[in-house]
Amino acid sequence: MPQASMPQAGTPRVVIVGAGFAGLAAARALGNAAIDVTVIDRRNHNLFQPLLYQVATAALSPADISEPIRRTLGRYRNIEVMLAEVTGVDAAARTVRLNGGSSLPYDRLVIATGSEYNYFGHDDWRTWAPGLKTIHEARLIRQRLLLAFEKAELSRDPDEKKALLTSVIIGGGPTGVEMAGAIAELGRFMITRDFRKLEHDQMRVVLVEAGPKILAAFPDNLVQYALRELEKTGVEVLTNLPVVSVTKDEVVAGSTRIRTGCVIWGAGVKASPAGKWLGIEGKAGGRIPVEPDLSITGFPDIFAIGDTALGLAEDGKPLPALAQVAKQQGEYLGKALKEKLLDGKAAGPFRFHDRGNTAVIGRNAAIFDFGRWTLKGHVAWLLWAIVHVYLLVNFEKRLLVSIQWIWRYLTRQRGARLIDENAAAFVPSSTQRTET
Amino acid sequence: MPQASMPQAGTPRVVIVGAGFAGLAAARALGNAAIDVTVIDRRNHNLFQPLLYQVATAALSPADISEPIRRTLGRYRNIEVMLAEVTGVDAAARTVRLNGGSSLPYDRLVIATGSEYNYFGHDDWRTWAPGLKTIHEARLIRQRLLLAFEKAELSRDPDEKKALLTSVIIGGGPTGVEMAGAIAELGRFMITRDFRKLEHDQMRVVLVEAGPKILAAFPDNLVQYALRELEKTGVEVLTNLPVVSVTKDEVVAGSTRIRTGCVIWGAGVKASPAGKWLGIEGKAGGRIPVEPDLSITGFPDIFAIGDTALGLAEDGKPLPALAQVAKQQGEYLGKALKEKLLDGKAAGPFRFHDRGNTAVIGRNAAIFDFGRWTLKGHVAWLLWAIVHVYLLVNFEKRLLVSIQWIWRYLTRQRGARLIDENAAAFVPSSTQRTET
Repeated sequence: MPQASMPQAGTPRVVIVGAGFAGLAAARALGNAAIDVTVIDRRNHNLFQPLLYQVATAALSPADISEPIRRTLGRYRNIEVMLAEVTGVDAAARTVRLNGGSSLPYDRLVIATGSEYNYFGHDDWRTWAPGLKTIHEARLIRQRLLLAFEKAELSRDPDEKKALLTSVIIGGGPTGVEMAGAIAELGRFMITRDFRKLEHDQMRVVLVEAGPKILAAFPDNLVQYALRELEKTGVEVLTNLPVVSVTKDEVVAGSTRIRTGCVIWGAGVKASPAGKWLGIEGKAGGRIPVEPDLSITGFPDIFAIGDTALGLAEDGKPLPALAQVAKQQGEYLGKALKEKLLDGKAAGPFRFHDRGNTAVIGRNAAIFDFGRWTLKGHVAWLLWAIVHVYLLVNFEKRLLVSIQWIWRYLTRQRGARLIDENAAAFVPSSTQRTET
Repeated sequence: MPQASMPQAGTPRVVIVGAGFAGLAAARALGNAAIDVTVIDRRNHNLFQPLLYQVATAALSPADISEPIRRTLGRYRNIEVMLAEVTGVDAAARTVRLNGGSSLPYDRLVIATGSEYNYFGHDDWRTWAPGLKTIHEARLIRQRLLLAFEKAELSRDPDEKKALLTSVIIGGGPTGVEMAGAIAELGRFMITRDFRKLEHDQMRVVLVEAGPKILAAFPDNLVQYALRELEKTGVEVLTNLPVVSVTKDEVVAGSTRIRTGCVIWGAGVKASPAGKWLGIEGKAGGRIPVEPDLSITGFPDIFAIGDTALGLAEDGKPLPALAQVAKQQGEYLGKALKEKLLDGKAAGPFRFHDRGNTAVIGRNAAIFDFGRWTLKGHVAWLLWAIVHVYLLVNFEKRLLVSIQWIWRYLTRQRGARLIDENAAAFVPSSTQRTET
């Protein structure tokens, strides 16, 4: 097998599938130990997802928030990185099957394949309402958003113009709130500065939530604050409106029809379908139930961490699908595997330490929930920025993102307003109402 | 028409097609004059093409070297920007036809549509050997290059591995030389740091030139220096070898067959087909002959500037297709049109001022040809870097590029090693020789 052409007899093998927050943390914790580690991912890069909405809204470049997995793990000589797709697991033979038909043996298997957006049975909506999980999707959203403005500038039909300038964000979680705030700021700036035939009052940003409130995981005082700030930025928040239909240019939520030029999906996630490899029906959102040591119930050599796992907090409640849970699970599991495989020691159960929950609404406005106390406003926004810069992967990215944020703060300019392809080809002739 | 819903009687209209170096310079020179200017481009952004090879080799992000045309021209209230594609010109009616069937009137028309790569009748080669003109192509090349290394890491067939690690650059002009040097540096670094199963001596970078020497526009002492530096970096230079065939994994040049994982085309350009709009057969490389005032022969109201125009130097020789020629022609024409349209003054003929010619070979190695004197080596490289940072569009980009270059100089790391899509899908199963 490729990860050890000259295997040392007796060196234990750990295979980690997925190099997100969870998988990378587990790999790092196993770094430079006397264990052969193989990390498999379908992509060549990791991604700092909390800032992906800034790529979608033209504030940052993809490379600012991602790094090749090889580079992240390059310093650990015991870790191999494979660009491949896992298609199945043979738990009896202890092998992982890869696309192309080959397979890879393991002593311990770690499944950290994350989550994907849940369209609740309407996968056809995905075409018109992309989620925000990959660089590809972020670029797609950026392109649609910017193209809608370009088309609106060319249109001479006021209704069409208004529809093109309406963005609909489905789902009132942190990602939806962040996208809505960022789109409102971007749109207002572009209309003021760069477009001649568009007016502020023609632009709408609508945040649609099926439940009774947005930011459901946050306490009420923060939600009220967020609502006020969103309103100030020009975002309309509609609650109790489950989405009924999504087409190219219209969203129907409850009985409300909204014509739109750009739809973004952020309404809940489901676990990756990795459970199928083991014949497991996932529970809530397809997540795989795990034991206190994060092994999958019934499979003591196979572990699940991050969004794909359904871990339980000490109070018996399911842990949320958050980056900090994924990271802590990865760190715990890497260390536990090392102790078990090398010293035969059994680790205690995984314990989640809540570092607080945050969302940013826009310029100078963010919220933090630390459980016992909360923070909002300018100070929260500054803390949010500092924490997120700190969490970036290296000094270069921290410097680059800081400079771009400071630049943006001072000028309101966004540096990455690129439509990648031959953009004119995307403008259908019917919307080009130039005089003939 | 869209560029002036409230046209002032008598305000002259200038339409500029293409927002590259030439078109933008012309538009800027017309900025805030009492003239209605419309700039039409198929893309929403301009592009600093001299650094595009750094996007293709993962050193910079697309947004570092491009800016929305709207933003560049946003400060001039008399300039409209249209994202559209021109399909024809009616010189008698003085209108430009757009995709979608609409049309736009002009008093003066400026054609600045640039050039494209010339495959000399073999347009099918384009699929396997993309040129380096757009962000899309730069990303495509980056993706192929990085994927070839990923495939090589997985391959267990030494011949296949060697083929995948062989890059072929066709065309020994500045772009070809810059790409070859940058790929050699990138490949060597990645093999040392990030790949476990690849060796330096398995990597090849081959620069193929049909003529007797590379960098034909430069004096011999600089060419000799460039050859030595390329050799040091690990680039093989093959001259007098016209390319006979290009397929997915093989280039045949003369009688030499080279198996390869990544082919890049840089072998000569031809003018955009704008001449066809006027029924003009272009001359050398399809370029449109222009008068000393840059009007197209026989069309006193239509001007051609930049790569698409065949201007003549004072000695009667054709001007080269260079950014500095384009920029100077744009500046001259913008000023001349303003004087003519507003004051009725006729401008003197266009005169090109040669600012010198440069190419960069790699770390610490560049060449400058200023006509009377030349410069090479470390100092030339530093000058090259300073000039190119200075030529970037604003302070933010200058700062971002400087930081990335300094970071790269110190660490040899390249920040943008991204394969964008679901990369594993690109790895065909036949190359995945993992043990079964």
